[in-house]
Amino acid sequence: MTIVTLTTDFGERDGFVGILKGVIWGLAPQVQIADLSHSIAPQNVLEGALVLGRAAPYFPPGTVHLAVVDPGVGTARRPLAAQVGSQFFVGPDNGLCTLLLEAAEAAGAPVHSFCLDKPDFWRPTFSQTFHDRDIFAPVAAHLAAGSPLEALGTALTDPVRLTLPRPERTPEGWRAHILGWDHFGNLTTDLPAAALAGQDVSISLQGHTIHGLVQTYGEQPPGALVALADSQGQLELAVVNGSAAERLGAQVGEGVEIRLPKRPA
Amino acid sequence: MTIVTLTTDFGERDGFVGILKGVIWGLAPQVQIADLSHSIAPQNVLEGALVLGRAAPYFPPGTVHLAVVDPGVGTARRPLAAQVGSQFFVGPDNGLCTLLLEAAEAAGAPVHSFCLDKPDFWRPTFSQTFHDRDIFAPVAAHLAAGSPLEALGTALTDPVRLTLPRPERTPEGWRAHILGWDHFGNLTTDLPAAALAGQDVSISLQGHTIHGLVQTYGEQPPGALVALADSQGQLELAVVNGSAAERLGAQVGEGVEIRLPKRPA
Amino acid sequence: MTIVTLTTDFGERDGFVGILKGVIWGLAPQVQIADLSHSIAPQNVLEGALVLGRAAPYFPPGTVHLAVVDPGVGTARRPLAAQVGSQFFVGPDNGLCTLLLEAAEAAGAPVHSFCLDKPDFWRPTFSQTFHDRDIFAPVAAHLAAGSPLEALGTALTDPVRLTLPRPERTPEGWRAHILGWDHFGNLTTDLPAAALAGQDVSISLQGHTIHGLVQTYGEQPPGALVALADSQGQLELAVVNGSAAERLGAQVGEGVEIRLPKRPA
Repeated sequence: MTIVTLTTDFGERDGFVGILKGVIWGLAPQVQIADLSHSIAPQNVLEGALVLGRAAPYFPPGTVHLAVVDPGVGTARRPLAAQVGSQFFVGPDNGLCTLLLEAAEAAGAPVHSFCLDKPDFWRPTFSQTFHDRDIFAPVAAHLAAGSPLEALGTALTDPVRLTLPRPERTPEGWRAHILGWDHFGNLTTDLPAAALAGQDVSISLQGHTIHGLVQTYGEQPPGALVALADSQGQLELAVVNGSAAERLGAQVGEGVEIRLPKRPA
Repeated sequence: MTIVTLTTDFGERDGFVGILKGVIWGLAPQVQIADLSHSIAPQNVLEGALVLGRAAPYFPPGTVHLAVVDPGVGTARRPLAAQVGSQFFVGPDNGLCTLLLEAAEAAGAPVHSFCLDKPDFWRPTFSQTFHDRDIFAPVAAHLAAGSPLEALGTALTDPVRLTLPRPERTPEGWRAHILGWDHFGNLTTDLPAAALAGQDVSISLQGHTIHGLVQTYGEQPPGALVALADSQGQLELAVVNGSAAERLGAQVGEGVEIRLPKRPA
Repeated sequence: MTIVTLTTDFGERDGFVGILKGVIWGLAPQVQIADLSHSIAPQNVLEGALVLGRAAPYFPPGTVHLAVVDPGVGTARRPLAAQVGSQFFVGPDNGLCTLLLEAAEAAGAPVHSFCLDKPDFWRPTFSQTFHDRDIFAPVAAHLAAGSPLEALGTALTDPVRLTLPRPERTPEGWRAHILGWDHFGNLTTDLPAAALAGQDVSISLQGHTIHGLVQTYGEQPPGALVALADSQGQLELAVVNGSAAERLGAQVGEGVEIRLPKRPA
């Protein structure tokens, strides 16, 4: 049974997500549909890319990820479908699938991208402002139902990529960056925690300094500010049973200074 | 595989929506269930009717739409199931299915309404305050599993209808009305944009005037106030990458004055 | 077709719920997944237990309830799977399944609890901070796919239970307690309404007094403060088409004094 995931900035109130499901199940009645998020901040492509990049590895081969955060709908931006390793992406060509592309390339897995220009696979009537319903949802359904990717469009080799923050080396250690925060207020950074493993580090942000990493929240009392490896292995700043985002008032992109212990001369 | 859609004002926090799914899958394990919205404003039947009316056309024949916004639960208002064209509605008889009835009638498709008065199709014990769980969900499941509609109740011919706003002709053109706004703050009106096609119109609301329609948001810079045809073909007022609802402070039902160009005498 | 339900405090924005679904469908492609709630207040185990306890009875035998509100993740608290009557629970051993245990025991149905200590049934790599993804979701999937419960861990006999509020007898009648409120602002109490049936009671909270119970909201005009049996049969305080939680400013655990009519001497 094939899975289609949905990631959008539609919200949950208006029924637009339900419309996508109606279109998909109308064409591919057997697929399972998993909502990843419909609360991406409106038009925030980076936030959508991060949510999708985080969740995709936990889905089985053949999964089709339909993602729509699409400030350029109706302009020249291309509609895209891509094979990224053993899975598929369908959505606007605006960088939403950047992390899927990078992960597939890093693993040496196949990547094949196509511009969706075959209206036979779209809804018969279509609106300039709702490509998700009229192009992306039917194409995702056809893919999930077994249509070959190369039938859906014309090959392209330059899918748009976001420029993601990267951790930087500094004389003292690393400068990481805040990528965002989750529902609990835990702050995610762009630095793999493995870079710090076993080291007596100090981590500074907004005038707060944390010494060392914990293995799990429960090692410290409620209210303590801690650093640890998050569920994806990235360095995370958290307040035990509280919100680090609220406590630190951090911004996306803000730097986090990490000081490593001096090596013996 | 039959689909059941859910439209309620239950919110997502309390588990009431999950209860409906438990009841439905307990009786009809094979159906797919699509949430349309559980964020209808409490007891706002018009808002529920609009969400349902907008989404239903994108679902396949046989779909059962279960909708519960039910300020009159436990009073004399009738429990209703209806065939509306190739689909079904189940819910309170308070106008929630007004747009489904109108669409079916406009298409010359069959409409058959029944008052649900056969407790054999209900849950064995039932609460006066939770008809959705005890009457509507089991009836929707039986319908989706193939029970004939006419077995579920007694025919009725006067399902309750809401009085919906209608656009009015004026000496200068049209007076449309705000029906509501979506998650992005785009304002929907009751006027089909086709009534304005190709015309050099001016559109006034709250002291703001918009000249002409765009084809898509991307034609104008972020922050611009624009008018266009929405995904259903209705006249919509929007702020590019922003919120027209916030900018204009508009109210549901408020008039929008549309001035058409004078025809040559 | 087996059902897995999900109850968490993850929120809907970050994609964590979608990750659980990816893991579950990857191992058990045929199961249906029903979201009960992902808006449990962070780390509020009691709130999660109440939502789960309210919804579980409406699911068919064999349903697997996966619940994760887990302030103790990564500490010594045990990972738990339990048979509770004809259904199953999977989650942290912190009292989340208290109401399922009580209901099964009250019905004389079987209860069997196991500490999850067989990594063969987990994800191959696992994080100390995301047991839901790496232990609970795969175990729930294996259970739903037919693995025997006793294969998943080592029997235990003392699952953690919450101390729930209980109604108290008073000289005048009862003292009930507010357990919480739903999306509509209706206040739920710990007193079965059946204890008051047919009696000319008066109910006092926060200086407001309600005389008698109604059968349904519609018996009183909008804005009236009423008492009635809720959909689970518990005493509920409500404002017709309004919010009792807002009107009364009540707190969880707060007492509600119920005065029964004096019996003839």
